[in-house]
Amino acid sequence: MRIDWSTILAGRARAFRPCIRTDFSSLPTPPDVIHFTGGAPPLECLPAEPLGEALARAWRTEPTGLWYGETEGHRPLREAIAARLAQRGATVDPDTILITQGAQQAIDLVARALLEPGDRVLVEGPTYFGALQVFEPYDVRIEAIPLDEEGVVLDELAAALARSPRPKLFYTVPTFQNPAGVTMTLERRRAVVELAAQYGVPIVEDDPYGDLWYETPPPPPLRAFWDEVLSLGSFSKTLAPGLRVGWLVAPPHLMKLLIDAKEAADIQSDRLLQRAITAVITSPWYEEHLARARRIYAERCQLLAEALARELGECAAWSLPRGGFFLWITLRGVEESASLLPHCAAAGVTFVPGSEFYPDHRPSPSLRLGFTTLSREDLLKGAERLGRVLRETIVEVSGR
Amino acid sequence: MRIDWSTILAGRARAFRPCIRTDFSSLPTPPDVIHFTGGAPPLECLPAEPLGEALARAWRTEPTGLWYGETEGHRPLREAIAARLAQRGATVDPDTILITQGAQQAIDLVARALLEPGDRVLVEGPTYFGALQVFEPYDVRIEAIPLDEEGVVLDELAAALARSPRPKLFYTVPTFQNPAGVTMTLERRRAVVELAAQYGVPIVEDDPYGDLWYETPPPPPLRAFWDEVLSLGSFSKTLAPGLRVGWLVAPPHLMKLLIDAKEAADIQSDRLLQRAITAVITSPWYEEHLARARRIYAERCQLLAEALARELGECAAWSLPRGGFFLWITLRGVEESASLLPHCAAAGVTFVPGSEFYPDHRPSPSLRLGFTTLSREDLLKGAERLGRVLRETIVEVSGR
Repeated sequence: MRIDWSTILAGRARAFRPCIRTDFSSLPTPPDVIHFTGGAPPLECLPAEPLGEALARAWRTEPTGLWYGETEGHRPLREAIAARLAQRGATVDPDTILITQGAQQAIDLVARALLEPGDRVLVEGPTYFGALQVFEPYDVRIEAIPLDEEGVVLDELAAALARSPRPKLFYTVPTFQNPAGVTMTLERRRAVVELAAQYGVPIVEDDPYGDLWYETPPPPPLRAFWDEVLSLGSFSKTLAPGLRVGWLVAPPHLMKLLIDAKEAADIQSDRLLQRAITAVITSPWYEEHLARARRIYAERCQLLAEALARELGECAAWSLPRGGFFLWITLRGVEESASLLPHCAAAGVTFVPGSEFYPDHRPSPSLRLGFTTLSREDLLKGAERLGRVLRETIVEVSGR
Repeated sequence: MRIDWSTILAGRARAFRPCIRTDFSSLPTPPDVIHFTGGAPPLECLPAEPLGEALARAWRTEPTGLWYGETEGHRPLREAIAARLAQRGATVDPDTILITQGAQQAIDLVARALLEPGDRVLVEGPTYFGALQVFEPYDVRIEAIPLDEEGVVLDELAAALARSPRPKLFYTVPTFQNPAGVTMTLERRRAVVELAAQYGVPIVEDDPYGDLWYETPPPPPLRAFWDEVLSLGSFSKTLAPGLRVGWLVAPPHLMKLLIDAKEAADIQSDRLLQRAITAVITSPWYEEHLARARRIYAERCQLLAEALARELGECAAWSLPRGGFFLWITLRGVEESASLLPHCAAAGVTFVPGSEFYPDHRPSPSLRLGFTTLSREDLLKGAERLGRVLRETIVEVSGR
């Protein structure tokens, strides 16, 4: 007998979807296509050797790490994370750090603990699509607060916080934002925290890129200004996304229930890997690695921006990010960047359309370019292809 | 400003709890305490060497495994799991296997996809506490269907299936059950599947112990009799719980949404570890490893049962499991085994009280003894201590 699954699935399952709606694999592309869609460290920045050795050592010397153990995470790793946050200006008790399967699981655990159907959830517009993917099945109303060059727009945030019912949380990527590249200024950080505190609305700060600045470190995380902030981090960008190791700094009151939620979700994260990461991030190698990665990303970002200036000219505008993985460009004379994607793919270049980063998938003239994994040659070639399609398409559109 | 988290937490967060409510660490115990509370392979059965080598090799040779990649899991691992299931009588398309963070995450993903507040969820009584921990926050009504020596009691299951509203699912551990050690007979399996199909109620089959039989293999998994069964497996018992690698076999219709749910939960599982596990479980070493593990568990189970027969005599009854990790004993003249735990702990022996395995935490005269990690000496000493306390306490209770 067949089961009629449509009568059995929970309502929320209708909202399950891939993090990116665009099916890049369905786009016809030439074999030498250049993908600006990535958001990962390049192969040459993956610490396969030092981390692989540390992991092999942990396997040899700590076989009990293969057992069940600390759901909250390896204590020395939590201490090392606290020490790094302290260097960035945020004083955090290691007991308030929960190790998670990447920052993605941290978002998921926070949503489990806080969200009820009908809740208002504030995000930045644009925002990280993986957060939308977590929030949507909770049947919440997600509202996008616009960004300017200094971070989330204060008046808009204040108005949204003031409206009833009180929002359940404000999710922000304040530093080298994904996708917009914007970094919230120090003043803006203080003001945002003050507003959230005034209205009693929790801030969920997602901060995977903070260590990956180009020339100067960013302002301290929001958690530095308010100890009620839920602050998420990850080794996905600084070491490797395949590790699936991140963390959640939570107010002490919430730690027990978040640890219980983690235990129900998957019992614990990989204990030997946590030991290996601890060894690696507390070794002198790690600062050298970060310095090298910063240099590489800064160079690639600069190179792409210069190439785009040559190739796109008046067709587009953007601001240079001061760290992170993404260049967010806004097209002139185009209402929906997604409409250009098939042309671009046919010409051998892809990007993530701006509409992916809004809860309502509104048409967006913007697009996200990830440059970290591309060689100098590919960055130039990709910019050239992009420029060619944009000039042709925009002329064609204007000509109609 | 402080946030009043009590006004912000979701209702479901009130149901977050540790998998075991008993706080063993709060019980005063002598230093040489013997814990019958474990449910993991012993150190001597952890494949640290072959698997550690395979993992080190994967790190060296496949650095792209450190990137983002297949959310559904490594294809050759899914094929190897399908091949093993085929040997056990269940024909499964590898495309319908999703790799998860242990079977625990598989339970969690199934609950996300299916459960609505007020739903009826059928489980076995007793059942695996980690499943209760997942189901409870969904605000469902969990009903425990009793077990007999041949598995879940058919009349009781039929009556529960027939009652309105239709149950959302029936969760079962049919093979070497945790905690009761019972294995559903072939006839019972056929009848259970027939009943569930008749009422259109999905079966969620949790099968982490199926490869760990003592003398003869168990009947085929329920998935062999009905391709609508959601069937969960894990390498936590056959290799190591610290790996956090399990799987979910799902009806083809559900695969896309379950993969999307997995992506929202944590993007993907460890890709290099999946490659290492594939190498290990398809090597001749694995069958030798399983044969050795089976022998060790069979011996320890036999030894403990014989010692309990000597020490407990008329105080308790049990059936010998034919595989798996647990001996479930039922005390005579005691209504709630948990009441004996402080006395036992003081005498240097602990167990998991039966009440932990029921959704309503009903007083239970039973208790679960996990024997896999204990040496011959500890098994004998533990049984002796248990017998001493039980004899004293039961006499004392009866004497009142």
